[in-house]
Amino acid sequence: MTGELLVVGLGPGDPALLTGQARAALASAAVLVGYSGYLDLVRAWRPDADFRPSPIGAERARAHEAVALAAAGQRVALVSSGDAGVYGMAGLALEEWARLSPAERPAFAVLPGVTALLAAGALLGAPLGADFAAISLSDLLTPWSTIERRLDAAAAADFVLALYNPASGARRWQLPAACALIGRHRAPDTPVGVARNVGRPEQAVALLTLAELPTWPVDMLSIAIVGGSTTRRLGDYLLTPRGYHEA
Amino acid sequence: MTGELLVVGLGPGDPALLTGQARAALASAAVLVGYSGYLDLVRAWRPDADFRPSPIGAERARAHEAVALAAAGQRVALVSSGDAGVYGMAGLALEEWARLSPAERPAFAVLPGVTALLAAGALLGAPLGADFAAISLSDLLTPWSTIERRLDAAAAADFVLALYNPASGARRWQLPAACALIGRHRAPDTPVGVARNVGRPEQAVALLTLAELPTWPVDMLSIAIVGGSTTRRLGDYLLTPRGYHEA
Repeated sequence: MTGELLVVGLGPGDPALLTGQARAALASAAVLVGYSGYLDLVRAWRPDADFRPSPIGAERARAHEAVALAAAGQRVALVSSGDAGVYGMAGLALEEWARLSPAERPAFAVLPGVTALLAAGALLGAPLGADFAAISLSDLLTPWSTIERRLDAAAAADFVLALYNPASGARRWQLPAACALIGRHRAPDTPVGVARNVGRPEQAVALLTLAELPTWPVDMLSIAIVGGSTTRRLGDYLLTPRGYHEA
Repeated sequence: MTGELLVVGLGPGDPALLTGQARAALASAAVLVGYSGYLDLVRAWRPDADFRPSPIGAERARAHEAVALAAAGQRVALVSSGDAGVYGMAGLALEEWARLSPAERPAFAVLPGVTALLAAGALLGAPLGADFAAISLSDLLTPWSTIERRLDAAAAADFVLALYNPASGARRWQLPAACALIGRHRAPDTPVGVARNVGRPEQAVALLTLAELPTWPVDMLSIAIVGGSTTRRLGDYLLTPRGYHEA
């Protein structure tokens, strides 16, 4: 008997932002593996499932557990927030799966989800209308010098920037440092949108400027979208026109 | 009586990749406005709706029509493929909406969807595990010099690259030119994934190298994901590990 491992992106948290495919996977999995905070979002409508919650920081062990359960013949959903491939569990799950011999491997699939930049972008109107770059400000796994190089390059080349993990309780200097780098290439009044807890009852969106961003209250549940040279405010929205010829 | 304009991302085309929110919007709209090819994806399950198809290239007129119908009191869904905010209809819709006086404006919302890079990324395993940049190779609305600058900057700073609109019937030299630029910073054997018609019955995925990409058959229904310095093949998948410390 061969099991199956489905790596499922939950989207931002609101069940209405789940894809039908992801919802069906969560509804049919026998075992649900994930960070306890994300599993709690599913518990209400899958009270019968076998829940295997784990704490933040236990990502490698979580991926290993999910692969082992699937290899033992279970239908397993490994739950990630947003899209599992974007700063989520897809990579670790794939690594752990590939450690098994081909004969031992369960079926494997990643199911896409609405990542934070899309959910925040939609609430903000159309900030992502031109080329954009996603950059995580978390230097837990990536050296800050690499993050700096990417911020500088992307700001210089006029990408709209989606800043994931802008701050946490312990990481406070990274966002001001990132804003200083971006500010070498963008005006202080560059429009910025910050979204927090998108898709949840406490959802909040703010429109500000690059000058205001360093001291804006953000955390791990926030994402900041920094506009490019053509981004402008339109009422309560942000617009980055698709092209210059027409603008 | 005030109408409502919902700008809806269809995802890649498979109804299973629609969010519940988008599906509900398409199910409840009285009028569906969009490119005829996308509206055809909805026609089967909304035979009763008022369909207003328009041809490719009529984007501005389409946005104008959708806003006008909503301003006249209708509940309108303006349909875009993927995510409406990523190279889609959200920006033009917002512009046309903002042309009205505040008193004339219908309710307005953008509903996010699964954009091509996420759908392709999921099929390819985990190519987007680190910072990434989305770049459209279409120079119809953006000067090629701007696209070149972005390709060069993003390749140099080791972003994973998602190349939208890599080619069309008339645009053939752009992909080889882009690959030459990227090749200044990436090895010829850099892993590349190309996905075509994701989420549709004719879906196809190919794993290749940067050296093979310039002559690979691609079109407007394809997206190419070019790996970064740490991206590697794992069986039939691509993996970009989240961080360097652990790799």
